[in-house]
Amino acid sequence: MKMWDLAAAEDDRRFSPYCWRIKMALAHKGLEVETIPWRFTDKEAIAASGQDKVPVLQDGQVIVHDSWEIARYLDEKYPAQPLFEGAQARSLAYVFKFWVETALYQPIVRAIILDLFATIHEKDKAYYRESREKRFGRTLEEVGADPKGAIQAFRTALLPVRQQLVQQPFVCGAKPAFADYILFGVFQWARAVSPQRLLEPDDPVFAWRERMLDLHGGLARNAKGYPVWA
Amino acid sequence: MKMWDLAAAEDDRRFSPYCWRIKMALAHKGLEVETIPWRFTDKEAIAASGQDKVPVLQDGQVIVHDSWEIARYLDEKYPAQPLFEGAQARSLAYVFKFWVETALYQPIVRAIILDLFATIHEKDKAYYRESREKRFGRTLEEVGADPKGAIQAFRTALLPVRQQLVQQPFVCGAKPAFADYILFGVFQWARAVSPQRLLEPDDPVFAWRERMLDLHGGLARNAKGYPVWA
Repeated sequence: MKMWDLAAAEDDRRFSPYCWRIKMALAHKGLEVETIPWRFTDKEAIAASGQDKVPVLQDGQVIVHDSWEIARYLDEKYPAQPLFEGAQARSLAYVFKFWVETALYQPIVRAIILDLFATIHEKDKAYYRESREKRFGRTLEEVGADPKGAIQAFRTALLPVRQQLVQQPFVCGAKPAFADYILFGVFQWARAVSPQRLLEPDDPVFAWRERMLDLHGGLARNAKGYPVWA
Repeated sequence: MKMWDLAAAEDDRRFSPYCWRIKMALAHKGLEVETIPWRFTDKEAIAASGQDKVPVLQDGQVIVHDSWEIARYLDEKYPAQPLFEGAQARSLAYVFKFWVETALYQPIVRAIILDLFATIHEKDKAYYRESREKRFGRTLEEVGADPKGAIQAFRTALLPVRQQLVQQPFVCGAKPAFADYILFGVFQWARAVSPQRLLEPDDPVFAWRERMLDLHGGLARNAKGYPVWA
């Protein structure tokens, strides 16, 4: 298998939360993958997927894009070590995904966007600034003007998962599954590009993140990024 | 089975979102229950549960309180027609519950609190005002000062479930289960006490609510409350 994986200036600094979902999911299933560093402006490289965003997974002759569709594809094609326990868990994980992408992405973007912008490849900078400033209706500098306030908002927004993580080790219960990888993508995104401290060590979410960093032979901990205690 | 169920001035106006979760869950399992109208100040009546909030369920010699604990109890004692597909679905439903109780309760309380206060039993009014004003740090009138703004915030906050409900008929997928009842409790709470229009008819959440109102022989639709098209 091959996967196109968003990289920063350095080939081995991989920061996409969507790509992290899939790298963790592949490791969860014990599937090997070759990840290919990709930049926002490398649209040609993934044209065969019929769209212009990563992750894109190539499995033999099959090309799948969109992290949610890739997760579903993986559970169908490789049912051992499922990412979803069944249809109800998958439906609730889908709601969870949209919660993460609204309640958490908004503050995390405000917290890390300037660190991220400093880290991405030179050839991506004009594209990134233009597309994000259009999306947010503000300059990157305005979006990122109050990272401390954004981190406070992020911690507050974590409440629903914090309540679960005082009861059980993972979002999905005793064992991690795709909803954990969805949430964890947010933290790997930040860790790859920003030295800021997102969580206090006494936060139950901090202990969960430690467990996630240790999973699958330390796949995420060994990836290039800032120490989480910084 | 018996269940103590929060009532307004009228015995048959039942508005607790937590009690609605359990009435729907019992109907889901085809279990009969006698519901006993209860008011906030009837602490004595449920003293055997060791605490002072409803729902309280009595099943033979067993007394269970807290809607989440009751749902777990029901799935354990009466496993047919499960409320949770398995441990992963239950964990994700638990996260969902805290999302509902933070992201949705806050705007819905601001939208309906004055209607609710007008509806509750005279003997509860002093208790309700004092306990809620202490909790919110504001008068009821201040909390409820902008119901239109609160309804807008409520609609916006529904985004994660709306994304699911454009794909599938229920929060839990093809069939309703406990997470649906958790969300639906919010709407029955409002419908019991307030004539305000919470949803526009073209909202996918509106169509879901219609399906929920029809479930189990129209249990919720036939309960005393305001028409949802008001």
